[in-house]
Amino acid sequence: MLPIAANLQVRLRRRPTGPPKADDFECAAGPMPSPRSGEVLVKVLYLSLDPALRPRMNMLSDYAGAVAIGDPVPSPALGVVEASRSPLFAPGDHVFGFLGWQSFAVADARSLRLIDPSRAPLPKWMSLLGLSSFTAWVGLTEIGKPQAGETVVVSAASGATGLAAGQIAHIMGARCVGIAGGHDKCRTVVEEFGFDACVDYKAPTFLDQLDAACPDGVDVDFENVGGDILRSVFQRMNPRGRVVICGLVSEYNGDTWRDGPSLWPTVYKALRIEGFRASTYFDRLPQFVDQALTWAADGRFRHVEHITRGIESTPQAFADMLAGRHCGKAMVQI
Amino acid sequence: MLPIAANLQVRLRRRPTGPPKADDFECAAGPMPSPRSGEVLVKVLYLSLDPALRPRMNMLSDYAGAVAIGDPVPSPALGVVEASRSPLFAPGDHVFGFLGWQSFAVADARSLRLIDPSRAPLPKWMSLLGLSSFTAWVGLTEIGKPQAGETVVVSAASGATGLAAGQIAHIMGARCVGIAGGHDKCRTVVEEFGFDACVDYKAPTFLDQLDAACPDGVDVDFENVGGDILRSVFQRMNPRGRVVICGLVSEYNGDTWRDGPSLWPTVYKALRIEGFRASTYFDRLPQFVDQALTWAADGRFRHVEHITRGIESTPQAFADMLAGRHCGKAMVQI
Repeated sequence: MLPIAANLQVRLRRRPTGPPKADDFECAAGPMPSPRSGEVLVKVLYLSLDPALRPRMNMLSDYAGAVAIGDPVPSPALGVVEASRSPLFAPGDHVFGFLGWQSFAVADARSLRLIDPSRAPLPKWMSLLGLSSFTAWVGLTEIGKPQAGETVVVSAASGATGLAAGQIAHIMGARCVGIAGGHDKCRTVVEEFGFDACVDYKAPTFLDQLDAACPDGVDVDFENVGGDILRSVFQRMNPRGRVVICGLVSEYNGDTWRDGPSLWPTVYKALRIEGFRASTYFDRLPQFVDQALTWAADGRFRHVEHITRGIESTPQAFADMLAGRHCGKAMVQI
Repeated sequence: MLPIAANLQVRLRRRPTGPPKADDFECAAGPMPSPRSGEVLVKVLYLSLDPALRPRMNMLSDYAGAVAIGDPVPSPALGVVEASRSPLFAPGDHVFGFLGWQSFAVADARSLRLIDPSRAPLPKWMSLLGLSSFTAWVGLTEIGKPQAGETVVVSAASGATGLAAGQIAHIMGARCVGIAGGHDKCRTVVEEFGFDACVDYKAPTFLDQLDAACPDGVDVDFENVGGDILRSVFQRMNPRGRVVICGLVSEYNGDTWRDGPSLWPTVYKALRIEGFRASTYFDRLPQFVDQALTWAADGRFRHVEHITRGIESTPQAFADMLAGRHCGKAMVQI
C-alpha cells in the first residue's frame, strides 16, 4: 500500500544569476509518484547539497544536462524504500541514488545502491562513504596518483570532497597542503583532519604562505576551485605534475567560463591536466566503501557533516554550501 | 690529428622580437674545439631547424634554458666523428646529438647516438628517423594512445612532427585529420602522406571544414600550434578525449603566453591535456628507429626534407621554417 503523504519538492523557479538565492527555488507539493514494474518508491531522508548542481542550473549547461525550470533539482539523496516493484529491493531497505530534492521519489531499482546502516550511521553514507569522498578517492587513486613524499595541494580543503582528498593523499604517503578561506577553516583542516598545512586564500599573504607550505613545489593539484587559485597552484607545479580537475566552484556562479592558464608549462614541465567523472567508476563503489571503513576504523579517515533540517530550508542551505559557510558535507535531513 | 679548418658558428646576436630575422643572428668563425677525455670532435653535416628553438631565444625561457647572447644556438645536428677520445666512437662514425649551429662541435660521447648510413640516407636520420618523428611517435604511443576508428587531429600537419604524427595515427588505425595553412599544403598532406583529410586554417570556412572533416568529433588532438587552432579543436573533443600538447608554435614569437581555454570541459567530458618531453623517452629511440624503418619498408611511413645549403643560410632558413614556408623537415646542410 502506498503511503498517504504529500510529496514536497524543491523546484528550480528561475535560473540563478550569480550566487543562488532562496527565491530562485520554490518548495511545493507535487504528485505522489507511483512505481511501475522494476521501480521502487523511496521516502527521502537526506538530500545531498553539491557544488556540481550549480552549473546544471544554468541555461547552457553541458554537465549532465540542465535542470528544467519547474523540475525538482536532481540531486543525490539517501532514503528508505517504501514500496518496491523490483526483486532488487524490499520495503525498509536503505538506498542511495539520484532521487532529487523531494520527499518521495520513484527510481529504477537498477540505479540505486543498497546502504547498510549497521556499518555506519546514515549521514556517514553521505559524507565519509558518499559521492564526495568517492570522488576524492577516484581522483587521487585513478588520476593524480600521488607517490609517497610528493606534495598534494587540495583546494576547497574544508569542503566535502576536499576533506576526503587531503586525508586520502595523506594515507597514500603524500604531504598534503590544503587551501581554504579563513583562519578557522584552515585550523580545522590541519588539527582535525591531519593536513600537513593549510593556506588561507583570503589572506593578503596567500602566495607567500603557499610557497612556504610547498617548499618542494607541487606534484599533484587536486583542484576544486579554479580561477586564481588554480593559477597560483599551477605556477608551482613540479615537472611531471598532475592537475586533477575535480571542479571549478569559483566559476559556477558566473555566466561564462574563465580561460585557463597558458598550456606552455604542460610542454616544458611535461604536466598532465585531467578531469574525470566519478560516475565512470561506480563499479568500484563497494571497494571504496570497504577501504574507507577500514581507514575509519584505524582512525585515519573521518568526516564531518553540516546537517540542515527540513526540506524547505534546502535552497538557503544550498546557497550557504556554495558560499563555503561551513566545513564538511552539507546535507538536508527531511 | 685535428683538422685544420675554421669553426663557423651561427650565434644569437640579440633576442628576436616577434618572428626572428636573419640579423638577429651572426655567422662568425669561432675557436676550433678540442676534445678532452671522454669527448669526441664532430664535423657537423646537417643542422636541425626546430620550432622549439624559438622560445629558448627569449629572455625568460623556461624551456631547457635560454640561449645566451653570443652563443651558437644549441640545436640538434648530425655529423661525422673527426677525432675521438672515447672508446664509444671512432673517427668516421656518424653521430647525432645536440651539437649546435656550428660546423664543428665537441660533445660528451655519452650524449651522442650512432647513426648507421647503410640503413637510411643521412637526411632521413633527421626527418623520418629524427627527433621530430620520434616526438610524434612518443606523443601518440605514450600520451594520446588513439584507438582504432578514433579521430586524431594533427595541427601543423605539414611540418616535420605533424607529417609523422598523422601517418603514425593512421598506422595505429585512427582516422587522421590534418590542419595546415593553405590549399597546397593540405593537398600534399592528404595525397602524399595519406591523411584522411586536411583542413586549411587560413580559409574563411575553417570551422565548417573542421566540422565536416570530424563528423564524429575529435578523440585525440595532437597539438603543435596552440592559440585559436587549439581552441577550435578543443571545442570539438569527444568525452574522454586526449589533448597531446607537443608544441604551441603560434605563440613562440610572442612575448607572453596566451591563456588556454577554460578547463571546464575537462570535467564534464573527462578530458586529459598532457604535455611531454621526448627526451624522457630517449631509451626507446632504437625501438622507434626499427619500427619506423619497418613501416617505411612497407610503404606506410615516409617523410620529406627541405634542405637549405650553407651554414650562413641558417638564420633565414630558421625564419622560413617558423613561418611554415615549406613542408617536411627543415634542415641545413653544411
